[in-house]
Amino acid sequence: MKFYENGDGLTEPRGFFCSGIHCDVKGKKDGKLDLGIIYSSKPCHAAAVFTTNDVKAAPVRYSQNLIQDPEATYHAIVANSGNANACTGKQGEMDAIKMANETARHLKVQPTQVFVCSTGRIGVTLPMSKITVGIRDASEDVLEGFDGAKAFQEAILTSDTCTKSCAAVLTTPYGEICIGGVVKGAGMIEPNMATMLAFLTTDAKASNNYLQNVLQKAVNQSFNRITIDGDMSTNDSVIMLANGNCGIEVSTEDESLDHSFQKAVEAICQCLAKKCVTDGEKVTKFVSVKIQGALSNEDAEKVGRCVSNSLLVKSSWYGSDPNWGRIVDAAGYAKVGLVFEKIDMFYDDVAALRKGEPVHNNKTQWKEIVSQSAFSITLDLNQGTGEAEIWSNDLSEEYVNFNKSE
Amino acid sequence: MKFYENGDGLTEPRGFFCSGIHCDVKGKKDGKLDLGIIYSSKPCHAAAVFTTNDVKAAPVRYSQNLIQDPEATYHAIVANSGNANACTGKQGEMDAIKMANETARHLKVQPTQVFVCSTGRIGVTLPMSKITVGIRDASEDVLEGFDGAKAFQEAILTSDTCTKSCAAVLTTPYGEICIGGVVKGAGMIEPNMATMLAFLTTDAKASNNYLQNVLQKAVNQSFNRITIDGDMSTNDSVIMLANGNCGIEVSTEDESLDHSFQKAVEAICQCLAKKCVTDGEKVTKFVSVKIQGALSNEDAEKVGRCVSNSLLVKSSWYGSDPNWGRIVDAAGYAKVGLVFEKIDMFYDDVAALRKGEPVHNNKTQWKEIVSQSAFSITLDLNQGTGEAEIWSNDLSEEYVNFNKSE
Repeated sequence: MKFYENGDGLTEPRGFFCSGIHCDVKGKKDGKLDLGIIYSSKPCHAAAVFTTNDVKAAPVRYSQNLIQDPEATYHAIVANSGNANACTGKQGEMDAIKMANETARHLKVQPTQVFVCSTGRIGVTLPMSKITVGIRDASEDVLEGFDGAKAFQEAILTSDTCTKSCAAVLTTPYGEICIGGVVKGAGMIEPNMATMLAFLTTDAKASNNYLQNVLQKAVNQSFNRITIDGDMSTNDSVIMLANGNCGIEVSTEDESLDHSFQKAVEAICQCLAKKCVTDGEKVTKFVSVKIQGALSNEDAEKVGRCVSNSLLVKSSWYGSDPNWGRIVDAAGYAKVGLVFEKIDMFYDDVAALRKGEPVHNNKTQWKEIVSQSAFSITLDLNQGTGEAEIWSNDLSEEYVNFNKSE
Repeated sequence: MKFYENGDGLTEPRGFFCSGIHCDVKGKKDGKLDLGIIYSSKPCHAAAVFTTNDVKAAPVRYSQNLIQDPEATYHAIVANSGNANACTGKQGEMDAIKMANETARHLKVQPTQVFVCSTGRIGVTLPMSKITVGIRDASEDVLEGFDGAKAFQEAILTSDTCTKSCAAVLTTPYGEICIGGVVKGAGMIEPNMATMLAFLTTDAKASNNYLQNVLQKAVNQSFNRITIDGDMSTNDSVIMLANGNCGIEVSTEDESLDHSFQKAVEAICQCLAKKCVTDGEKVTKFVSVKIQGALSNEDAEKVGRCVSNSLLVKSSWYGSDPNWGRIVDAAGYAKVGLVFEKIDMFYDDVAALRKGEPVHNNKTQWKEIVSQSAFSITLDLNQGTGEAEIWSNDLSEEYVNFNKSE
């Protein structure tokens, strides 16, 4: 598998076209690209994973309905930034439908073949006259085969500091399969709402059910592992389109191909998820929290999330303070029945605790490791075989300053 | 019921004596009082509630063992600050036992009649030679009837900015019952570990079982309602001693007296809990988060905790930003099946949302309310009769700065 970061991403697989335009969603006339379309003239199969928040934005509810039909095909995704169309009542529902209708009309496809995504401010209805003009312009661009991969990447950003994309090329006995992806970040870098939107394209051929299975597994191993501020948005969405353009069919029938494709989709999702955690000038550290030896994977995940979300732990990372006491304390309130006297703990590969006893000789190294911009913390509970890995970051003063008002 | 704040607290009920001395637990020779004793020559019945963290400090495990016997009596509590005796292995266990033994020896009581509490740094063993000298001095003070209520209040503080105490006098048909209490704060004001220690004394007569029931209920309505940074310590303890000195017996048999006593203990615990939330120069706002209309009290509490612990919500309070979108988003990820279109929301008594629709006319008032140093947020889910109230505060840049290293 060849892997490329920060390139065109979505348009690497053949047959996908992207656009990104400015239609002034926020009314700031700042020229920021704020609406984009991903399009394949060939019908695609698709998969999607959405926020589990009880409060789901109108576009999430609209898009979620589309993927109920295992035989359905799709042509496009339309996405805007600057306004999340969340908590906007009946008007919001109608606006999401209108975004699909307008996109479908211009692209000459069915409205049920168009996914809709929004990110930005919540509680404010969309400026639909601007949005419809934007959809017209963005549709024209993709129909003309405009090379708008970078423009699309920009159009979905809110307060992200950079575009985030990658692509993978899988060499198979039948030829090459290409997968591309982009993401906009979550939390810490989004003052209004911690929305994450990720889109994947591939030229492989696959059924909706197969793709859904692959994407859900990949999301569990990537986007569901990250925690930035513990907040989950009303709009989080991950959508994958497969147009079959390379002519190679992936399914569970060819185990080896299935396995390689799964790994490639996971690699794309993990790369994008890590980019989310590290993007943003408010973040100074990437920390991988690894829990081993728990009674179950679920227990391990609980412990990992308690450690990763603890304000005291995150603050100490910011200060490059190897405070193992706070980490053990946070692990303890996951309440999975851990026993302190059994715990081994490591900063990267350097032991901090052995069976609950601090390895004082290594103290200088702990400090060196926690001073790095990326490091791992491993907690082995020595109780079973359950494990989990969570990707986290530090909590800076700038985060609070940045988020104290809209 | 008469209620007094910030007085002697613990020594208001007759027959209790307190002391607080400096024995240099931290080795800083700064003269800070760091060890104290609460003592009653008359044997007491008692109740206690401890941290549910899997990682419990040695003194917590020691004290928890003492309250297993419904017939047991007690004479004292010994507490130190500066060192939590947590994550200290077998040595820690022995040190906690030694603290009880030494206190018992000087006070001429049984070691099983002495509760032990510690707060401060974790992972470091206690300087026992200093502690034993401290216990001797503090014991002499209480035996001599020294008026050390204020000294005790100071001795248990870590980075709290002030002592925190209160007392209540209950007039009953049989005479007066007095209850006193002190607390040291949790989180945000404690950089090393978010420990909360609270002690209550009363001159009422009551059985261990009755007291335990009363205290557990009161803790549920007070200390269990507060959330500062979502971190729960290895040392949190609430202990109540009843020496029977006023001669009035409280039990469930006299319903009216039972009710008044319960209310008085709750009032003490709530007063102390609120003092914990508001103490500390790093906190600028006290926010009462009230959830109503949930399907159950448990659901209401889940929603309240998600809102109260959200970094995005807490940051916006700090910035006096009435960001109802973040509040609703946080409520949504409690995943209790709430429906946004049913939600009513209020800042104090001013409507922000009615059935999910923002009440834009009140916008100026929202901002005024959130700019206050104390306000409430009420979310009515309009689904049932479940309710909960959580006391929270804002997240300031200073919190992160203060906690970034020990």
